[in-house]
Amino acid sequence: MTVQENTALLIIDVINKMDFEGAEQLLQQTLPVLEPLSKLKQHCKRQNIPVIYVNDNFGLWQENVNQIIDECRGGLGDVLIETMHPEENDYFIIKPKHSGFFGTQLDILLKHLDVSRLIITGLTTDMCILFTANDAYMREYAIHVPEDCTAAETAVAKDHALEILSSTLSLDCSSSLSLMKGE
Amino acid sequence: MTVQENTALLIIDVINKMDFEGAEQLLQQTLPVLEPLSKLKQHCKRQNIPVIYVNDNFGLWQENVNQIIDECRGGLGDVLIETMHPEENDYFIIKPKHSGFFGTQLDILLKHLDVSRLIITGLTTDMCILFTANDAYMREYAIHVPEDCTAAETAVAKDHALEILSSTLSLDCSSSLSLMKGE
Amino acid sequence: MTVQENTALLIIDVINKMDFEGAEQLLQQTLPVLEPLSKLKQHCKRQNIPVIYVNDNFGLWQENVNQIIDECRGGLGDVLIETMHPEENDYFIIKPKHSGFFGTQLDILLKHLDVSRLIITGLTTDMCILFTANDAYMREYAIHVPEDCTAAETAVAKDHALEILSSTLSLDCSSSLSLMKGE
Amino acid sequence: MTVQENTALLIIDVINKMDFEGAEQLLQQTLPVLEPLSKLKQHCKRQNIPVIYVNDNFGLWQENVNQIIDECRGGLGDVLIETMHPEENDYFIIKPKHSGFFGTQLDILLKHLDVSRLIITGLTTDMCILFTANDAYMREYAIHVPEDCTAAETAVAKDHALEILSSTLSLDCSSSLSLMKGE
Repeated sequence: MTVQENTALLIIDVINKMDFEGAEQLLQQTLPVLEPLSKLKQHCKRQNIPVIYVNDNFGLWQENVNQIIDECRGGLGDVLIETMHPEENDYFIIKPKHSGFFGTQLDILLKHLDVSRLIITGLTTDMCILFTANDAYMREYAIHVPEDCTAAETAVAKDHALEILSSTLSLDCSSSLSLMKGE
Repeated sequence: MTVQENTALLIIDVINKMDFEGAEQLLQQTLPVLEPLSKLKQHCKRQNIPVIYVNDNFGLWQENVNQIIDECRGGLGDVLIETMHPEENDYFIIKPKHSGFFGTQLDILLKHLDVSRLIITGLTTDMCILFTANDAYMREYAIHVPEDCTAAETAVAKDHALEILSSTLSLDCSSSLSLMKGE
Repeated sequence: MTVQENTALLIIDVINKMDFEGAEQLLQQTLPVLEPLSKLKQHCKRQNIPVIYVNDNFGLWQENVNQIIDECRGGLGDVLIETMHPEENDYFIIKPKHSGFFGTQLDILLKHLDVSRLIITGLTTDMCILFTANDAYMREYAIHVPEDCTAAETAVAKDHALEILSSTLSLDCSSSLSLMKGE
Repeated sequence: MTVQENTALLIIDVINKMDFEGAEQLLQQTLPVLEPLSKLKQHCKRQNIPVIYVNDNFGLWQENVNQIIDECRGGLGDVLIETMHPEENDYFIIKPKHSGFFGTQLDILLKHLDVSRLIITGLTTDMCILFTANDAYMREYAIHVPEDCTAAETAVAKDHALEILSSTLSLDCSSSLSLMKGE
């Protein structure tokens, strides 16, 4: 699909403390994602497509975006925060678990915005992206997971997850370029 | 019940813009609630009972406590915000609809805190308190709704809701004094 | 509203063992409901409005309609089962708790049937009807609870619940006659 | 883990019409699973571990086990139905979508049975098993997916899913033999 009406861009877990085991590896896999993801985000904003950050709470339960961003600063994740810092009119949803739909207002916000198509991006392909895509699939959203806008700790783990998303669930996992055609 | 282990205090919708039809009436009914509710909150904090604000998003979807508090300032609700302003170590959960459990992380936070008993307070008895109590009841929490710590637009509406909570659901709706015995 | 497209009729807990304390009282309050409810059901079937039983599991977890009906026979509830026995093309959903939406496929079935309007009927007004109506309200269904097609253990309890449904939630609680106009 | 208290055995989608594209392939992959799965089920029954079928509704919404079993008979799936026919005291939950937790009473039943450990078996590894395991993981159940008691349309698809379950989620995917040690 190309970016069109009734679409939202989900950006998952890019505001990230990156303080866990394997974080360095994940960061290496994530760096190449930042440019295409930034471009896709800017494209969506030009098209008035809502941009929704869906982000781990990193142990905080105050539902305070700025507090979470501050909590994540000062470590490996700084480069992500700089590049992908949410803008004032982006939505920001805090998730307590892996799926963006579990224990959050995401589904209610999407209905409020009349969204039926999701572009799911961010970290990590085999965990929060997969969990969120599965939940979106059961709720019958049309789903695109652009393969150049998501990363996992290893290329193999990313491939396994993309294989399930594209072969088993028949989701569109083509590159973000296909979403920006015709601009 | 008295305040005891495994209990949390829920404070619902007291950070409130009070800009809707009927707000003046609701404010009149709410003012007498502020003193017992403040006392109950302070009692809970002395007992290390977690205090969880569960609050309407007032049309904001950024999940930013401070932004919601700012949005609510400058009107009828100021007296509530001053008296009941959340403290730094209170939890704050933003709810998109009437029940504190619907589209929120409340249930997950309560499990995380090992809570099985809820004291439900705030606004309004016949709407968000009733909806939240119903959802807590189905999830098998022990529930106390102290009648002096909740208000509705009219005394009659409050009575109808308390009647359902106490007679139909057999919840404890006795005054907050019963919760603070023995301190 | 009159019965129209995108509507479903929910019939809650009328397949009922009626073996609990207060069951005789509830039965007395329920008997006058059976005629208008039967008529409303037949009207809906003539209009091809889906009829969905949403019924307590009475301690059985086999999700077997016939087993539940058998379990409920032989007691006070027999008159309800005879009058309101589900027909082969009625839907039947088993609920483990009070709200028809909690732990059931109701919301998914309603989306599958493209339903946005609910007529909620059955037992009891201040418990499962109220819980189900609250959950439907948060999910933004248009809701009609015809006051002559629902009952509670006492007329007072029914009135309290109807008062909340009609005054607080502004739901249409007018008689089922208003739904059958023009046939 | 070995089979122990607070455990339930989930058997997913083995009552199956097998009338879809790829069903012959899936059947080939499933036949070798039937023997270990039967043995594991019998082991669980001897240990008084609850056995819970969680099964697709195959387009029926009557929540009637027998009707679903009848609907599935007469085709490729007959061998599964014969081998794995639910016994009278097995639980049977009908799911409308892929995860056993979505739109079902599974989570409520598990709490009712005081279950905190799940053995997840059946079809298909990369779809309903993966979706159900993900949902169980977010709800903090201990999870074992014995690799010899689950199948997918291809061995490769099964491997991808097992890789995510065992490497990404760190679930125990060892053979069912490890669950039956010491009997």
